[in-house]
Amino acid sequence: MPEKIPDLIREKDLVLIYLDEKRNFLTQIQKGLKLSSDYGSIEIKDIIDKPFGYTGKTHLGHNFYCLKPSISDMMMKLRRTTTIVYPKDLGYLLLATSIQSGSRVVEVGTGSGAMTMVLSRLVAPDGKVFSYDRRPEFIENARMNLEKSKVLDGVEFRERDVSKDGFVDDNIDAVFVDVPEPWDIVVHASTVLKGGHHFVSWSPNVEQVRRTVEILSHQSFIRIKVNEILERELLVRERGTRPSERGITHTAYLVQAQKVLPD
Amino acid sequence: MPEKIPDLIREKDLVLIYLDEKRNFLTQIQKGLKLSSDYGSIEIKDIIDKPFGYTGKTHLGHNFYCLKPSISDMMMKLRRTTTIVYPKDLGYLLLATSIQSGSRVVEVGTGSGAMTMVLSRLVAPDGKVFSYDRRPEFIENARMNLEKSKVLDGVEFRERDVSKDGFVDDNIDAVFVDVPEPWDIVVHASTVLKGGHHFVSWSPNVEQVRRTVEILSHQSFIRIKVNEILERELLVRERGTRPSERGITHTAYLVQAQKVLPD
Amino acid sequence: MPEKIPDLIREKDLVLIYLDEKRNFLTQIQKGLKLSSDYGSIEIKDIIDKPFGYTGKTHLGHNFYCLKPSISDMMMKLRRTTTIVYPKDLGYLLLATSIQSGSRVVEVGTGSGAMTMVLSRLVAPDGKVFSYDRRPEFIENARMNLEKSKVLDGVEFRERDVSKDGFVDDNIDAVFVDVPEPWDIVVHASTVLKGGHHFVSWSPNVEQVRRTVEILSHQSFIRIKVNEILERELLVRERGTRPSERGITHTAYLVQAQKVLPD
Amino acid sequence: MPEKIPDLIREKDLVLIYLDEKRNFLTQIQKGLKLSSDYGSIEIKDIIDKPFGYTGKTHLGHNFYCLKPSISDMMMKLRRTTTIVYPKDLGYLLLATSIQSGSRVVEVGTGSGAMTMVLSRLVAPDGKVFSYDRRPEFIENARMNLEKSKVLDGVEFRERDVSKDGFVDDNIDAVFVDVPEPWDIVVHASTVLKGGHHFVSWSPNVEQVRRTVEILSHQSFIRIKVNEILERELLVRERGTRPSERGITHTAYLVQAQKVLPD
Repeated sequence: MPEKIPDLIREKDLVLIYLDEKRNFLTQIQKGLKLSSDYGSIEIKDIIDKPFGYTGKTHLGHNFYCLKPSISDMMMKLRRTTTIVYPKDLGYLLLATSIQSGSRVVEVGTGSGAMTMVLSRLVAPDGKVFSYDRRPEFIENARMNLEKSKVLDGVEFRERDVSKDGFVDDNIDAVFVDVPEPWDIVVHASTVLKGGHHFVSWSPNVEQVRRTVEILSHQSFIRIKVNEILERELLVRERGTRPSERGITHTAYLVQAQKVLPD
Repeated sequence: MPEKIPDLIREKDLVLIYLDEKRNFLTQIQKGLKLSSDYGSIEIKDIIDKPFGYTGKTHLGHNFYCLKPSISDMMMKLRRTTTIVYPKDLGYLLLATSIQSGSRVVEVGTGSGAMTMVLSRLVAPDGKVFSYDRRPEFIENARMNLEKSKVLDGVEFRERDVSKDGFVDDNIDAVFVDVPEPWDIVVHASTVLKGGHHFVSWSPNVEQVRRTVEILSHQSFIRIKVNEILERELLVRERGTRPSERGITHTAYLVQAQKVLPD
Repeated sequence: MPEKIPDLIREKDLVLIYLDEKRNFLTQIQKGLKLSSDYGSIEIKDIIDKPFGYTGKTHLGHNFYCLKPSISDMMMKLRRTTTIVYPKDLGYLLLATSIQSGSRVVEVGTGSGAMTMVLSRLVAPDGKVFSYDRRPEFIENARMNLEKSKVLDGVEFRERDVSKDGFVDDNIDAVFVDVPEPWDIVVHASTVLKGGHHFVSWSPNVEQVRRTVEILSHQSFIRIKVNEILERELLVRERGTRPSERGITHTAYLVQAQKVLPD
Repeated sequence: MPEKIPDLIREKDLVLIYLDEKRNFLTQIQKGLKLSSDYGSIEIKDIIDKPFGYTGKTHLGHNFYCLKPSISDMMMKLRRTTTIVYPKDLGYLLLATSIQSGSRVVEVGTGSGAMTMVLSRLVAPDGKVFSYDRRPEFIENARMNLEKSKVLDGVEFRERDVSKDGFVDDNIDAVFVDVPEPWDIVVHASTVLKGGHHFVSWSPNVEQVRRTVEILSHQSFIRIKVNEILERELLVRERGTRPSERGITHTAYLVQAQKVLPD
């Protein structure tokens, strides 16, 4: 067995400083930083060179834990300018495509960059994510979010209204659409998507998916499918096990389709 | 704009030959192969060098489409020796960890190799999946499935009963457990998992997750969470839009936790 | 304490002869009747004057039980000419109205008479259910079903197309609508329903409820609400507790509204 | 057609004074009463002798509507001393029994009286509800709630700990159990329930239903079934139709069983 090499926390690393479910902070490590909550303060310099998993104490004596952030943590804790795609939905959609290391992917609707970040991790190290948004302030915010996550290398942002002006990239392995009018993207997606490959979009309303499905079926897409993914927490406690009593009951309907070439 | 290079179908490629939702075949392309269904037969040699997305006709005149298989397609169409983890569940669990290109992952319960395949795509090209099973026939079947999917490079199979004998690999970024008694794996997972990193398991019964959660909480795991992911299809048809009337209503409860180092 | 008077099975009684979940028979007791299944035969005359709850044996030695049919049993085991409203939906809708002993209720879409039967039990002994259907064969079948259930007294069947010709009854406490185009009933319901009282309808498709809601909101109905009721079985077994793995995932969207009088 | 007799609002009537979903008041009509909200005040004397469905105006000019309260409204708006059974659950359970006008029902766990009220309406005019609770303050509160709802006639309250001392009533058509330890009631229920008739209980935790099911199966109960009823609102709006985004995700598991007599 190889000697165990601890994974040490270094400057610039992303760490989830976790006290409890209400007090946890996705933090990029910098010497001068100090975190404060009602449970006491934490000097970030004190955790540099400690291993991931380290248990420390705030100045008020509460335990804190230095955790590796999951992909979901990074998605849910981004600085948001818009609604975010949820991990339950994105995890499902990723497997509904064929993307992998090396793929070329377009995303329409950069939003906060949550999906951009996940896609770029998946296609790393040699793939490309082309992320389109017509709003420069969204692209700027997403770029900042991704710098923090250290996954900028494979990402190209495009400030452009795809519904009007189409894409500038081609030979695409998958198209991800998160805009209020996904049907306007379909004809452009059809142009740049490789034959047989996958289009996905998501929308909160039934009318939106209905219209998207209609346009897809007129634009050489087949195997069109719509579904919802629901997440339900099960609380396992000393006094008994039961589902959570309140929670999120709807996020979006997910649309998937595959492009075929003319007969 | 670069000239569009069609993605041509070559020998050994995996193609989803799709006629409709009931007649579709995940096929590794070989010259001599012939596919037959009640909609007619297809000579595989006729689609070699055609682009993905190609529309052909069976000898009875039915259309078939040469689609790129999604990751879900590959999972669901493996030769199975056991129950499979569903894409809705696996997609969620992947994002609940921090794995990416280059990660070292262990899986306990190779099963049909569906998860092995997805994990190896995610950690490619330089990561490693160590897949443990005590049943040699399962490993053999999974190896065949993965050869077909062309993702064997990063995978090491280990014929070994982890509950008794532990792991032989170390410095692990994530542990995935799919065995009937996941609690028996927890202490071994704790030994090989990097500090702050993720353990996930899934089980159909409440009693199984209850026991796993109890053991996790006694073994330096925190942020333990259990949930279910439910998938609900929405049928969008000319005559109206409604959820599917019958379907799968339970697969498994998903457990996630993160390891901390002793105080 | 009063002496316990056993509830004896008499001729004409409805009994659920129960062997197991697959072999159970809603039976109106008649001397000459004989029930047969692969578990053996049962002479009905042998259970007359036995108490409800009696355990007997088929000629092959299998136990059978003489159970009191629940309202759900009676609904689900009617001779059906059409899709049935499910107990989970009807139970919810009943409480969404104010009906009780003595109420006057109209139902549009007699169907198999399942709802007619439940409504007539609720308004008994002095209330009235006016059940409308334009198809005489449905009314005939429902009448037969209700004779068996011994709840015909408070029921008046009306062979009439309400969407065209309206109702003949008035001063109604609640309107229940189960037809494919419930919006066509709204204006007539508004005429006969008492002020402040309840309209309910159900439909499988989103488009149907959308249109019904629109018409209701233009016809002096307020507090319009749409929902779904989902039923999920939990299997409690020696080897573990888990939700059922497959089942019904959609029946209908339920619409409710209350009528107000012009300002 | 009979002349339409408006249903006029009288003193002592229960009326739902409805301004909107946040401002609505279940009110027993009394001359001197005045209702106030941020939408203005309403003099109750002004609505006496108006028909149900009447639209009035507050002193600030907001519309209010005089609606007939549904059974659900009455359940949800009781003065509560405890958690309430939800209409979705109770509606389902009622149909899982055979109760009707004239039935004799026991309830264990009077709580706020919500279920007592619904049961007494169902068995009216000649049936009986025997409602047991060991806490006199709960019985007192329920009695007040039922006086308001005008359904006290068929109800007998029993201050008694059934788990220790059993029931005093017999020849019962259905037993409804809403206490934290329903398994303690099973043997007593078995004694007083008519053969073949129905036991129902509900509990939030899996462990509670598991234990109840085990005891039932040892006490001559068969056809034991556990399920959950889930309610999901569909928001139908000008800008689109979608399920509600947040809500209640768990209330209770429902247990049902039928008693058989010894062989």
